[in-house]
Amino acid sequence: MGLYDSFSRLAQEREAFQDDGLNPFGTCIDEVHCATQGRIGNRRVILAGTNNYLGLTFDPQAIAAAQAALVEQGTGTTGSRMANGSYGGHVALEQELAAFFERPSAIVFSTGYVANLGVISALATPKAVVLLDADCHASIYDACALGGAQIIRFRHNDAADLERRMVRLGEQAKHALIIVEGIYSMLGDVAPLQEIVEIKRRLGGYLLLDEAHSFGVMGATGRGLAQALDVEQDVDIILGTFSKSLAAIGGFAVGNDRGMEVLRYASRPYIFTASPSPSAIASVRSALQTIAQAPELREKLWQNAHRLYDGLAALGYQVGPHASPVVPVMIGTKEQGVRFWRALIEHGVYVNLVLPPAAPAGITLVRCSVSAAHSEQEIDVMVEAFAALRDSDILESVA
Amino acid sequence: MGLYDSFSRLAQEREAFQDDGLNPFGTCIDEVHCATQGRIGNRRVILAGTNNYLGLTFDPQAIAAAQAALVEQGTGTTGSRMANGSYGGHVALEQELAAFFERPSAIVFSTGYVANLGVISALATPKAVVLLDADCHASIYDACALGGAQIIRFRHNDAADLERRMVRLGEQAKHALIIVEGIYSMLGDVAPLQEIVEIKRRLGGYLLLDEAHSFGVMGATGRGLAQALDVEQDVDIILGTFSKSLAAIGGFAVGNDRGMEVLRYASRPYIFTASPSPSAIASVRSALQTIAQAPELREKLWQNAHRLYDGLAALGYQVGPHASPVVPVMIGTKEQGVRFWRALIEHGVYVNLVLPPAAPAGITLVRCSVSAAHSEQEIDVMVEAFAALRDSDILESVA
Repeated sequence: MGLYDSFSRLAQEREAFQDDGLNPFGTCIDEVHCATQGRIGNRRVILAGTNNYLGLTFDPQAIAAAQAALVEQGTGTTGSRMANGSYGGHVALEQELAAFFERPSAIVFSTGYVANLGVISALATPKAVVLLDADCHASIYDACALGGAQIIRFRHNDAADLERRMVRLGEQAKHALIIVEGIYSMLGDVAPLQEIVEIKRRLGGYLLLDEAHSFGVMGATGRGLAQALDVEQDVDIILGTFSKSLAAIGGFAVGNDRGMEVLRYASRPYIFTASPSPSAIASVRSALQTIAQAPELREKLWQNAHRLYDGLAALGYQVGPHASPVVPVMIGTKEQGVRFWRALIEHGVYVNLVLPPAAPAGITLVRCSVSAAHSEQEIDVMVEAFAALRDSDILESVA
Repeated sequence: MGLYDSFSRLAQEREAFQDDGLNPFGTCIDEVHCATQGRIGNRRVILAGTNNYLGLTFDPQAIAAAQAALVEQGTGTTGSRMANGSYGGHVALEQELAAFFERPSAIVFSTGYVANLGVISALATPKAVVLLDADCHASIYDACALGGAQIIRFRHNDAADLERRMVRLGEQAKHALIIVEGIYSMLGDVAPLQEIVEIKRRLGGYLLLDEAHSFGVMGATGRGLAQALDVEQDVDIILGTFSKSLAAIGGFAVGNDRGMEVLRYASRPYIFTASPSPSAIASVRSALQTIAQAPELREKLWQNAHRLYDGLAALGYQVGPHASPVVPVMIGTKEQGVRFWRALIEHGVYVNLVLPPAAPAGITLVRCSVSAAHSEQEIDVMVEAFAALRDSDILESVA
């Protein structure tokens, strides 16, 4: 038996999707022209499938800060935070994040995946009970698996189901971890956080909120869904990433208890990972300032979100439950999804194709996302591409 | 019960090590002057505890490449490799790594921890049997835990013990994963790879070799221990990192079977992590070229390694089993270790303090490491600092 034999069916299935070198699960963006446009093969496309919500990847101030850090501090730290990889910038960013959230403690990680893995695996030990929204991101499931906790999934965004399961836990509910997300990455919908907080107030438990897709995007100053719904004091740990609105790579945890600092000594993914490069830290510090100072970016983002959502809904497409920077469009079968994704590229629009199990509940979808950097014209090109495909034979059997 | 109550003993223990703001497990290097010197508080120190083996963190070519990538491609990709995070540079680096190793396949990851987690967790499923050198890095243990495989540890660098355990497995040995490292990070010693390969030839199994600390450091062209011992054809997957000799952040896997490509669809840590930033990719591509073109860096590194190892051994310190860019010095108890580490900083030398369980077999050690960028004078300053402490009261009870 060969080393990869157990994956042979998967390999065959994925190879079947490959056509003319255009692979929906490994698209190479050959050139990136700006935050919203690039080249795939010989085709210039609008980037309508990224997490670049505020369009800051080409922010001149962030680029200049990263360039300066390269010269002043070098290309990498070559060490973990616990050893030689904590530079002045790492510590400053943690202080700035804590101040931005008005919380006592913040910890920076090298990727968003590692932030979730690092915080949750340390807390979700075999003695712990974790109540997870079923649609939580893979990194949260992996973190629970690594930690060895007992996992109880509740139905996506169903606070009543969460409550039933907590009641069933009895006394154990008081120390259970409840994990939900701000904006969910695939459907663009938000957690019913006020209801969840109300349950937590009555039954106990600790609340961890992953604001990966909502940080910079929601809330009066961009702190996320908890701020938007005025329940920040009830969230024990907010998790976030640098690779979405902050336009770099890395992740963070912000805690309402200074005790969170102990995770620096208890979290293996934190301890045993090289620290973020000085240039990533510098560009994130710059982007964080921009988020604090430019609320108009968030306004533009939501205008674009509504324009795309309304445009696609008006065409009769089945979209997400409400307008959001993430606009999923449901597309029949896997095969139809692949054809549709490919046809959108032919029309100059790049989106993400999402198949089960990454998409929830057996759905095939193309995931569109908007950026504050998209112009109205670019949004209109996206809508026109979907309009052109509305009556194509691709969708026939599901029309 | 509070969220962090179960860590209270750990928190107390670690806080006790804190003194005058100088924490051996969270030292802030306030300024980095060059690859070998920095400032900690008000003290200028020689950096003698990094993984910057070739000293390339301040390589002008790598810095220029990273700066250009920032302008051309932005501060981050804001997506995973599977979605919108594969740029031309990511694919080019994979081709260059495959070519450098003369292997059919290479996959790039966002950190070295994630490379190990991603490759090993996908292969080390509950059906798999994994034979691990007991001193393997935490990321390898975490990967096996995440994958759910049965783990069998064999005694560190003891090929006979590996063989006994494989024989006991019977037929299962033919499909077992054997995981070892090139240079071990704490003792600086190398795996008995020829003996291990000979056992694999007789009994079967697959060999995964983590060259994190040996890539760029060993072998005629810097490919690592397998190249140095001429057994590359017997290694199924070589794992490596960008945060040591390549001076950035990220990781890689290079396989001798094109089938390894399927891990792009099977490895959750790969699929669900944001891809490396364009600037990290650009600096790594530059550093890889430098490694290929500048064998004199490796020569200088080994001269420095011998100079430090011989110097410390001559002082009567208990060092590692042989000269290596990693030079551990055994220091009695935890408390002595902390005092010794602090005294070295007073003498202008920064090293890593390593306590159990990170250090093997209940040992407390200070981990020195050398770089090709260290001057002979800098090595001599390190040796002088150890000389000054040789007769201090810190070591009295263990002298």
